[in-house]
Amino acid sequence: MNTAEILIVGDEILIGQTFDTNSNFISQKLNKLGFDVQRIVVVSDNPKAISSYLDRALFTSKLIIITGGLGPTNDDLTKHTLSSYFGSKLVLNYQVLQHIKDLFKNKYNSPINKQNEQQALLPDNARIFINKYGTASGMWFTKNEAHCISLPGVPYEMKALLVDQIIPAIERDFQLPFNYYRTINTIGLGESNIAQRLVDWENQLDNRIKVAYLPRLGKVRIRISTTDNSNYDTKKRVDDAVKKLIPLITDIYFGQDQEQIHEIVAKLLSENSLSISCAESYTGGAFAAQICSLAGSSKYFKGGIVAYDKESKTKMLRVPDSLINHLGVANDKVVGYMARGAIDRFGSDLAIATSGNAGPTRGDKSVPVGRVYIAIAYREKTSTYEFKMNGPRSQVIERSLNKINELLFHTLSEIIK
Amino acid sequence: MNTAEILIVGDEILIGQTFDTNSNFISQKLNKLGFDVQRIVVVSDNPKAISSYLDRALFTSKLIIITGGLGPTNDDLTKHTLSSYFGSKLVLNYQVLQHIKDLFKNKYNSPINKQNEQQALLPDNARIFINKYGTASGMWFTKNEAHCISLPGVPYEMKALLVDQIIPAIERDFQLPFNYYRTINTIGLGESNIAQRLVDWENQLDNRIKVAYLPRLGKVRIRISTTDNSNYDTKKRVDDAVKKLIPLITDIYFGQDQEQIHEIVAKLLSENSLSISCAESYTGGAFAAQICSLAGSSKYFKGGIVAYDKESKTKMLRVPDSLINHLGVANDKVVGYMARGAIDRFGSDLAIATSGNAGPTRGDKSVPVGRVYIAIAYREKTSTYEFKMNGPRSQVIERSLNKINELLFHTLSEIIK
Repeated sequence: MNTAEILIVGDEILIGQTFDTNSNFISQKLNKLGFDVQRIVVVSDNPKAISSYLDRALFTSKLIIITGGLGPTNDDLTKHTLSSYFGSKLVLNYQVLQHIKDLFKNKYNSPINKQNEQQALLPDNARIFINKYGTASGMWFTKNEAHCISLPGVPYEMKALLVDQIIPAIERDFQLPFNYYRTINTIGLGESNIAQRLVDWENQLDNRIKVAYLPRLGKVRIRISTTDNSNYDTKKRVDDAVKKLIPLITDIYFGQDQEQIHEIVAKLLSENSLSISCAESYTGGAFAAQICSLAGSSKYFKGGIVAYDKESKTKMLRVPDSLINHLGVANDKVVGYMARGAIDRFGSDLAIATSGNAGPTRGDKSVPVGRVYIAIAYREKTSTYEFKMNGPRSQVIERSLNKINELLFHTLSEIIK
Repeated sequence: MNTAEILIVGDEILIGQTFDTNSNFISQKLNKLGFDVQRIVVVSDNPKAISSYLDRALFTSKLIIITGGLGPTNDDLTKHTLSSYFGSKLVLNYQVLQHIKDLFKNKYNSPINKQNEQQALLPDNARIFINKYGTASGMWFTKNEAHCISLPGVPYEMKALLVDQIIPAIERDFQLPFNYYRTINTIGLGESNIAQRLVDWENQLDNRIKVAYLPRLGKVRIRISTTDNSNYDTKKRVDDAVKKLIPLITDIYFGQDQEQIHEIVAKLLSENSLSISCAESYTGGAFAAQICSLAGSSKYFKGGIVAYDKESKTKMLRVPDSLINHLGVANDKVVGYMARGAIDRFGSDLAIATSGNAGPTRGDKSVPVGRVYIAIAYREKTSTYEFKMNGPRSQVIERSLNKINELLFHTLSEIIK
């Protein structure tokens, strides 16, 4: 099997100032190609750290993808380090220079400065890939049997280079084996309870299959994976295991692979020509933002009201003043009225509403931190729910989104049955 | 200087299915303690990968923090691997067993199952730290001069253990040097333009100072760092550099360190008793959700309308029908009306509004992908802006939030001047 590693160069990641999102994207792509990604390593942008990493990695992996350290500023040393490591000489690449000049003209309507001109100085013994969104080129070095590809650290530049140019080149140059996995997505039951329910299923599996449970705030993904030399064998082995798994988890199963619960909900709305709106208090627009993050959401999403203060609840959603004066803003009655108000305002088939206390303090709220109310309305019917959500503010909101989508998923499954 | 490494154990990260957020949190904490984090490494949850990592890391680092691989399911092998690596015997820890029993009783109102009982089998030669939110304990192994601390992979369990128990223990056991950095946050100018403006400033800096530029969708953070044996020297060196830097960037400077532009905007609103509301079309509630993610936002955030379809723009925000029929929904006039509508509806001092095309396709929109309009209203005055935002849908939205906050920051700075 082909082994690969990912090296992320960046002091800002080692000191915790920036999240590394590149390794996630690259590992997805490499796995899909059939590479066994053995390590992801983050090191400082300094010659010694990079060289000592390469000394080992070039022995153990066939392919190393490096990102970062290629910027025009003085703290970016990776190009120089790699060039000297692979015995290259830096030479002016006229094609790249022209590209950089064009880029500056079109993007900023300005000539390039000296720092950016130096981005066209590139190693003479590497394959060069022009970065259409930026000044840092991709560089492909080869030493003995190992390949080392250096890409810029800016995520969208790296992604475009990888997808458009590097992956096609890898597919041409490598003999790739078969790596296959499927992920079964569940919601509403904890990791250890699921594992316990599946003990017999796990025990009778082919021992070349690996099973992993990946929990996240009310959702658990079950990943079933294997590797083999034939595409048919790997696929069949995993597909058989999945076929036996699904009937055991019908109550919590909602989708597979990269499918997200909110995407499934959106798909059900879209396919059944149902529309939705929302009235959000403590979730503050997070439900609306999540649904609007999907392309084409205007087909089924009518709009929403972020009713953060008392007045917007009474005036815009017509929650009775007396009710709030009597019971406060966080309870099942208010949240029910909010959902009805959204349906009336937007003329949607469904609506969701939220009210509660996401923390961190009780403040002037009528309920303790983590106590939340959710309503789901469909035409004339309104259901309300009370929950206790653990964790800090951001988690209370994320858990709530998961719960709303779980409730919507079950509601929609009933409606279209 | 004390050197440290972070090892993340998890197949799900190597195949790109899960984001690793733990290393970011841990590296922040270790840096603050004065450790030089030299590497972050992700490996598979298998004995060979973990052992071969430790063979090297125990030689080069004084402290290794490991997360992941401690769950109750069969795919979690890290505890067994570490125990055998450090020559431990697994023994039943009665205190931990009682804790797990209590946890299940209080959380799920159920007795524990066999898999969770095994979580109380722990290495006899490690210091054990009870995990108040879960069943996987923290384990601290020592070999020669090196320390290796294993923590659960679930982020909030890991964080609580690290902050409440591990860091205080590290502070007791290590002699810690001084590592100091400050970050200067800017918005509105690109990385290479800033670097060019700062060439002279960089050249005259003490050569023990490191400068890094960290760009992100319209924002650039400038990090100035150094290390020394005295707290006074490190602080003074960096503070002097910052003092000379600020006057050079007054037009783009908005804050320091972890301060985010939306937090600064929120602070300015709060401190000056100004309120805000919003009317969002293509940003779909993302502005509202961002402001509501801050604790205490009900003090200055009145609410918002996600006016996603034409009707909610005309009915709820009183944008004239004729205007939309004539010019479409995405233009400076409509977005201006939307902001006025939000001020009227919510009675806020300020309002922002958005309309445009976030992509990925033109659809039935009247404007091309990436063309967006933003309005900022303050009392009677309304300003509108047109932008071309690059990138996929999610980036258009994130860039827009940055731009809105930049505009709000400048507007508020004017108001309170």
